[in-house]
Amino acid sequence: MSAGTRPLRVGVVGCGVMGTDHARLLARQVSGAVLTRLTDLDAGRARSLATELGARTSADGPSLIAEDDVDAVVVASADATHSALVLAAAAAGKPVLCEKPLAPSLQEAARVVRSLEADGAERLVTLGFMRRVDPAHVELRDALRSGAVGTPLLVHGTSRGVSAGPGATSEGLITGSFVHEADSVPWLLGSPVTHVCWQAPRRSAGGPELQDPQLLLLRTADGVLTTVDVLLGARYGYDICCEVVGDAGAVALSGATHATSLTTRSADLLRTSAYAADWRPRFAEAYRRELQAWVDGVHGLPAPALATARDGLVAAAVCDAAVGSMRAAVDGAGPWVPVVVPA
Amino acid sequence: MSAGTRPLRVGVVGCGVMGTDHARLLARQVSGAVLTRLTDLDAGRARSLATELGARTSADGPSLIAEDDVDAVVVASADATHSALVLAAAAAGKPVLCEKPLAPSLQEAARVVRSLEADGAERLVTLGFMRRVDPAHVELRDALRSGAVGTPLLVHGTSRGVSAGPGATSEGLITGSFVHEADSVPWLLGSPVTHVCWQAPRRSAGGPELQDPQLLLLRTADGVLTTVDVLLGARYGYDICCEVVGDAGAVALSGATHATSLTTRSADLLRTSAYAADWRPRFAEAYRRELQAWVDGVHGLPAPALATARDGLVAAAVCDAAVGSMRAAVDGAGPWVPVVVPA
Amino acid sequence: MSAGTRPLRVGVVGCGVMGTDHARLLARQVSGAVLTRLTDLDAGRARSLATELGARTSADGPSLIAEDDVDAVVVASADATHSALVLAAAAAGKPVLCEKPLAPSLQEAARVVRSLEADGAERLVTLGFMRRVDPAHVELRDALRSGAVGTPLLVHGTSRGVSAGPGATSEGLITGSFVHEADSVPWLLGSPVTHVCWQAPRRSAGGPELQDPQLLLLRTADGVLTTVDVLLGARYGYDICCEVVGDAGAVALSGATHATSLTTRSADLLRTSAYAADWRPRFAEAYRRELQAWVDGVHGLPAPALATARDGLVAAAVCDAAVGSMRAAVDGAGPWVPVVVPA
Amino acid sequence: MSAGTRPLRVGVVGCGVMGTDHARLLARQVSGAVLTRLTDLDAGRARSLATELGARTSADGPSLIAEDDVDAVVVASADATHSALVLAAAAAGKPVLCEKPLAPSLQEAARVVRSLEADGAERLVTLGFMRRVDPAHVELRDALRSGAVGTPLLVHGTSRGVSAGPGATSEGLITGSFVHEADSVPWLLGSPVTHVCWQAPRRSAGGPELQDPQLLLLRTADGVLTTVDVLLGARYGYDICCEVVGDAGAVALSGATHATSLTTRSADLLRTSAYAADWRPRFAEAYRRELQAWVDGVHGLPAPALATARDGLVAAAVCDAAVGSMRAAVDGAGPWVPVVVPA
Repeated sequence: MSAGTRPLRVGVVGCGVMGTDHARLLARQVSGAVLTRLTDLDAGRARSLATELGARTSADGPSLIAEDDVDAVVVASADATHSALVLAAAAAGKPVLCEKPLAPSLQEAARVVRSLEADGAERLVTLGFMRRVDPAHVELRDALRSGAVGTPLLVHGTSRGVSAGPGATSEGLITGSFVHEADSVPWLLGSPVTHVCWQAPRRSAGGPELQDPQLLLLRTADGVLTTVDVLLGARYGYDICCEVVGDAGAVALSGATHATSLTTRSADLLRTSAYAADWRPRFAEAYRRELQAWVDGVHGLPAPALATARDGLVAAAVCDAAVGSMRAAVDGAGPWVPVVVPA
Repeated sequence: MSAGTRPLRVGVVGCGVMGTDHARLLARQVSGAVLTRLTDLDAGRARSLATELGARTSADGPSLIAEDDVDAVVVASADATHSALVLAAAAAGKPVLCEKPLAPSLQEAARVVRSLEADGAERLVTLGFMRRVDPAHVELRDALRSGAVGTPLLVHGTSRGVSAGPGATSEGLITGSFVHEADSVPWLLGSPVTHVCWQAPRRSAGGPELQDPQLLLLRTADGVLTTVDVLLGARYGYDICCEVVGDAGAVALSGATHATSLTTRSADLLRTSAYAADWRPRFAEAYRRELQAWVDGVHGLPAPALATARDGLVAAAVCDAAVGSMRAAVDGAGPWVPVVVPA
Repeated sequence: MSAGTRPLRVGVVGCGVMGTDHARLLARQVSGAVLTRLTDLDAGRARSLATELGARTSADGPSLIAEDDVDAVVVASADATHSALVLAAAAAGKPVLCEKPLAPSLQEAARVVRSLEADGAERLVTLGFMRRVDPAHVELRDALRSGAVGTPLLVHGTSRGVSAGPGATSEGLITGSFVHEADSVPWLLGSPVTHVCWQAPRRSAGGPELQDPQLLLLRTADGVLTTVDVLLGARYGYDICCEVVGDAGAVALSGATHATSLTTRSADLLRTSAYAADWRPRFAEAYRRELQAWVDGVHGLPAPALATARDGLVAAAVCDAAVGSMRAAVDGAGPWVPVVVPA
Repeated sequence: MSAGTRPLRVGVVGCGVMGTDHARLLARQVSGAVLTRLTDLDAGRARSLATELGARTSADGPSLIAEDDVDAVVVASADATHSALVLAAAAAGKPVLCEKPLAPSLQEAARVVRSLEADGAERLVTLGFMRRVDPAHVELRDALRSGAVGTPLLVHGTSRGVSAGPGATSEGLITGSFVHEADSVPWLLGSPVTHVCWQAPRRSAGGPELQDPQLLLLRTADGVLTTVDVLLGARYGYDICCEVVGDAGAVALSGATHATSLTTRSADLLRTSAYAADWRPRFAEAYRRELQAWVDGVHGLPAPALATARDGLVAAAVCDAAVGSMRAAVDGAGPWVPVVVPA
């Protein structure tokens, strides 16, 4: 922190996995911020984390937003609560960093963005698409801009986790996992997604509600064709890859980005390196940078750009097209569906 | 060679890139064979190679097949000549190893297979799908069979070359390059391709006749979905990759298979390993094993199975469906087309 | 920062490469700290950095240490000034993080440690051996402790840079570069270095004062033999590697730790990944963690252990033995010299 | 085989691991050769292999050498028998490929070479240092000659196996394993080894007769310093590595050379590739090329150069210096010992 800076007093709504990580980062790893308030539906959970981190608790999200010792808010509560909290924070003139999604439906997301824009409050809202500050993704985007592969032609992405959670659904796979590619692919290419096509590979074990994996094809305005395979139950590790193939070469996030720093050789005649079990170790540095960039931005310091509410709306529209293709699929093959971003 | 073995006297029809490589391998690297005859439309080319390798020349393919000092024939001449030469060799009762394709059209390939089967001559004909003896592909297939990834769900393949040849066409990309995946994917999975869907990525520089790259989607009878990107003008190297994702893990041909054995670090702050410029270094060992397996099989020695004429017909049917999808494509998106193998 | 924490006000002595990096991290990336003061022999350099970071300047190191708005001090000035500044800060009861070395000579380092210990001020002094908080090195140490390789037998380290600086000397290579292994190897193994042996490889281009590279052999008390090659002029990149071989396996810092997150394939038939040009990108995260750990420790928060003044003395004794072996070398081969840590 | 070539009729003395592999290669994978005769101390073993490969047996080595249907001989019997068999084959004017070592002692090796040179029979004798035709080692040597790393300064080699055999001794580790580096390092650098220094790392479990691992330092005439760690009981796999560091870069045999072609990711959160359990899969292609080169050379065809009897003598002298340093070691540290090649 620079001398003379008054630390930004931040409250965090939601103390689940993401909210807890954000709170710990704000309390221990971010310059220029102080964690002042926490709240959670489970009051005991909030209290326990508040004790650990030297913060106080508030009764609920709206109360936290209204506290005098809260200058800015992180929203990491249940998805259904995001839009109301974002609008409340914006109405209070307080900057808010909202975990994806902005809203549970495309229509609701559109309503939030319209409301923010009508009030001139867009600049107060940041969406938590952390890949935009993930060092590996930033390197990849910089490489593309520097012409490392010439003109991009094809993108291959994979979004794989270890196992599907208990209530996982086919649609949730799109809006919860694929949504990251819905944002990152056009961000990498600098070109919006115009059409989406859904395809069903052979189904892994899992409930009848869940088609896992899924293959999504994306067409961006520049003509690039993207494939993304999303597989919740990949077993072998959390694995986010991306390869961009151009007319002068190809570039990919290499294994280094999602595994250990070590190569181990052991008595079973194997050379091994480890995968992360979930997104937290993989994107730990991205989350730290996201929060630092957000706090720096509020302080008026130079900081990398983060995703806006409108970016969240656009990603939701891409997911909506993917769901539409899925619903129209015959024998596992969906049609190409145009992406329509509501006015 | 074992004592008592009479070396198989082999003639090679066609002294282009492939024929020359086959002839050199037969003369210098294959046990139990002797290269006796060569022929080529360019008689000087045949003569020069014959001098190098201690062989004699024949006037043309049919003459070579008929020579007394030819026990078996390798067909590596122009695609359009394959079917007639195969039938001629079979009619002479001489084993023949034919480079792909078996015939220039699906109908012609079907006619050849029908004729061979009517004459009980199928066992005389081998198709040159060398991936079936490529050590890396064999390892991959063995790993799948051993259950290394559980039940396969998804396959991603890439078939990339450095640059498109002068006369390259969109259809030729399918029948000349993709044909290898048309054979290798069902061979790896142990399940035939039932449907193919063609998609056009952004087009690289190239003639108006050529859509390069192309993305092919395959559905096999087991429900597995396969993506194959074929890119003639990848610039960066000859790169054949394959990843199989199952419900218990994933396995891939790693970089080792297409590059150098060395890692070099140089003054431009780079750690590098080299790609091959074309398929010859990449598949040199596969071609040697293919010829050795073919010769061993003729001698009645144990040898890995090679592709049959029927395998060539099936691969041609897969390519035919791909071409059908391409021709029916609207805005770069083709429909799913069923694979029909002619009776 | 937690609510209620009074930020630690930090002054930085020395605004060269390391001091500037430390100042920027303290001002922008460290929780619980505020950068208040800077000083440098080049007053303009200090002023310019102070303006950038919102800090003030002090006339010199002793003045900075005495400032009311300085609670703790980072010493990143010229090596010869370290010991006096450390003792001054300790005398003022202010925590100090000192870049290596603690002192320009072993005797001087011993005097500093004796003085600190006599005054009960050891706990105020931290040495900047950042590998102790480098994620890759921490992972390596954890792997060894978890028994990943069984009992360690052999260690191979490399310490390579792009080019030797203008005034580089053979002794400076030991005390400036090898000193990191002098600390990290016994820290990794949990066993002190008892003997050192120096060997001269063929000499790269460079001034007559400089034997570059050098090979150091270390014997630790546990019997493990370590080789370290130090090469200032490696040209190809900044490359810190370490492999530990045990009786049940081997583990190494893999390439991931010193290069880019990307694999790029380009038209020269190469697959490449980039090296850093110097230690800053490689150890950026280690420096941030070092400062955060130091600040957290001062605040009484849980934090990873950092190196002490005594660790600095011990590393200096290892370097002293290395220099002793070098001076006694005949035809490039030095004797084994015991490590003696002054009382 | 070329038309007109009379196959070289080869007999193999010794049907142990190496002799069996050589016999199978000669019978099945080598062009221009026919396996005619086998012999072994265990007559049943020879008979069984002869049946498998269509060869006949001879009573013993001298008888085999004398057979009319033997044009050339491979010696793969017990080390102590090599020199007499080599001299017998040479006396019979028959080319002989002898597994290392040429003789059980340096003096005996010198006697053999003197005898061969006196008789002008050197050209009949080839030593089985197969690294000289291992594709990875050949690539490495070519890279060095092309200037890829500038002037070589340092070499690091590792020679590791899975476990020490029952009768393994410290000296046997040098003469049986390290002997390959004793030949390959000067061959790579184009400069003879002049001095050797032996160092004992911490000892792995193993009999009292066995110091495992060992670290050997080599000085070549060009001033390059080489480290080689030899570890019979590495557990994790058979692993032959080599890195050459020069004043313009570095180059290494990469992992590709000793492992599988696959990367497998499995449910234990690991990305793995497999090591070979011993040298046979690692050097299978080198052995095939060695035999092909040897047969081609006898036929007068162009072929890569193989090691001579004198190369075997020189490697034995390097090993002798290593043993001398080991015997003179105090507290695990041996002196530098000059390499003396007997006249």
